[in-house]
Amino acid sequence: MADIIHRVGIAGSAGDVYKALITNEGLSTWWTTDTSGAGGVGSIIQFRFGGGGPDFKVVEQKPDSLVRWAHSGETPEAWMGTEVSFELTNGEGQTYVLFKHSDWKASSDFMGHCSTKWAVFLLSLKQAVETGKGKPFPDDVPIDHD
Amino acid sequence: MADIIHRVGIAGSAGDVYKALITNEGLSTWWTTDTSGAGGVGSIIQFRFGGGGPDFKVVEQKPDSLVRWAHSGETPEAWMGTEVSFELTNGEGQTYVLFKHSDWKASSDFMGHCSTKWAVFLLSLKQAVETGKGKPFPDDVPIDHD
Repeated sequence: MADIIHRVGIAGSAGDVYKALITNEGLSTWWTTDTSGAGGVGSIIQFRFGGGGPDFKVVEQKPDSLVRWAHSGETPEAWMGTEVSFELTNGEGQTYVLFKHSDWKASSDFMGHCSTKWAVFLLSLKQAVETGKGKPFPDDVPIDHD
Repeated sequence: MADIIHRVGIAGSAGDVYKALITNEGLSTWWTTDTSGAGGVGSIIQFRFGGGGPDFKVVEQKPDSLVRWAHSGETPEAWMGTEVSFELTNGEGQTYVLFKHSDWKASSDFMGHCSTKWAVFLLSLKQAVETGKGKPFPDDVPIDHD
């Protein structure tokens, strides 16, 4: 098993960050503008990137402190069986987001790609909360020339 | 043991990327402007960030394909026993860099911070090779408010 881990500090309240993680509107500000299905525990969120994209089932939501999703469906294949979590903690003048994309079957080129891309999207989340404008797909920062 | 992994595609030759990984001048364009000691296998590179910073011993250098460093010295403590590698492969119109910072004793908040920060610096490497100007420390992209 292999995990991706990231941590950013966002100048905003835990409530502001939490909101950006649990609603279609919030998620659309930083990951992809084509987000639907977000709701309470058990809801399935569909993230689309110009056609395809992953589904995640909401597993746990603790207001202002934790959001946990389990990958659902079969796209991308390497994400099957993986889980994503966002843990929020208060720091001085910021809320820390500890992000994990856990339980990959094996390390791979694609996992490296996703790890870098998650960093880019977490900085987009940071920017969205701090300035009101993130860089969600299709305006995301490119990390290669595919 | 836990590993950080990233992958970026850089519009440049493997030779251009390799040069940015093996000389003080090259490393200064994307990680920190205060870099010294880079040389052949066995040399110890000192990376400084406004005072302190890590040392790495060059373990392996295969022209245009692989650079491997072993952490040396005692700063930061969590990096002791870890290794960094850059594997270069040719893609269409780009050189892929598969980056690993391997053999952390355990996952931690600090490892999350470093993972995100490595992504930022790899995008700085990408920018340096593609445009001639990266964002090395002290002009690096902030990921928190410390």
